[in-house]
Amino acid sequence: MPDILHKVGIKSSSPDAVYNALTTIDGLSGWWTRDTSGNAKAGGVLRFRFGDGGFDMKVVELVPATRVLWQVADGPEEWLATRISFDIKQNGDWTIVLFKHQDWKAPVEFMHHCSTKWAVFLISLKSLLETGRGAPWPDEIKLDAWE
Amino acid sequence: MPDILHKVGIKSSSPDAVYNALTTIDGLSGWWTRDTSGNAKAGGVLRFRFGDGGFDMKVVELVPATRVLWQVADGPEEWLATRISFDIKQNGDWTIVLFKHQDWKAPVEFMHHCSTKWAVFLISLKSLLETGRGAPWPDEIKLDAWE
Repeated sequence: MPDILHKVGIKSSSPDAVYNALTTIDGLSGWWTRDTSGNAKAGGVLRFRFGDGGFDMKVVELVPATRVLWQVADGPEEWLATRISFDIKQNGDWTIVLFKHQDWKAPVEFMHHCSTKWAVFLISLKSLLETGRGAPWPDEIKLDAWE
Repeated sequence: MPDILHKVGIKSSSPDAVYNALTTIDGLSGWWTRDTSGNAKAGGVLRFRFGDGGFDMKVVELVPATRVLWQVADGPEEWLATRISFDIKQNGDWTIVLFKHQDWKAPVEFMHHCSTKWAVFLISLKSLLETGRGAPWPDEIKLDAWE
């Protein structure tokens, strides 16, 4: 099954700081969507909203400073049961995030859109950690008429 | 084999303008790398350089205002013989580019990097066409210590 893959390096940050931005309501609100709520603990469900739509993510795996895994519990049909992971490691002065959104059923046009959009938000994560200021929804780059 | 997929919408542009930015030295220099040279015609080879390294692309298919297909003729080992396509269509006020970089042998870390980096450059293409100003190498967003 096709996957969306990304990598961003965050300069002069740390695995702990990146993990915090991926595992707290405050952190997630700072780079993905300002309308984030729910339970960020393992087994909890996070709610990400973007105006009319959004995603509910079950927090499946949390390894401090190392790994985060979500499974989509609710959202657009193409996203249901797909999994999203963030693997964190340090490389010299850079904290590296390897991102994977896997188990898409087919490489549909919406998957192309989501791939580019994930890059936009991962660059927002990088900006949040490097400068203190991300560009979460509704302030992120709009890619097409769907938004 | 895994593919990199992306989609960007360009507002108030046209399929002809997007095609021009993908098929002329001047256009390509405006969003991917300022160090672009070679023969942009079908059967020609385009040379894209980024300081020490870069890619040579054979122009395999050109359908005006509709489709561009390149095959990698020289570059990093992971890129050799992979193919890169841009499919263009109009959707209301938006010109849509569906991008695919296909035939990667394995989903290695470098593929994650290239996926995010393609998004950075496709947003540069969007910016070039919407505002007259892209962010080609060496002025694009740097994603990690490799750059």
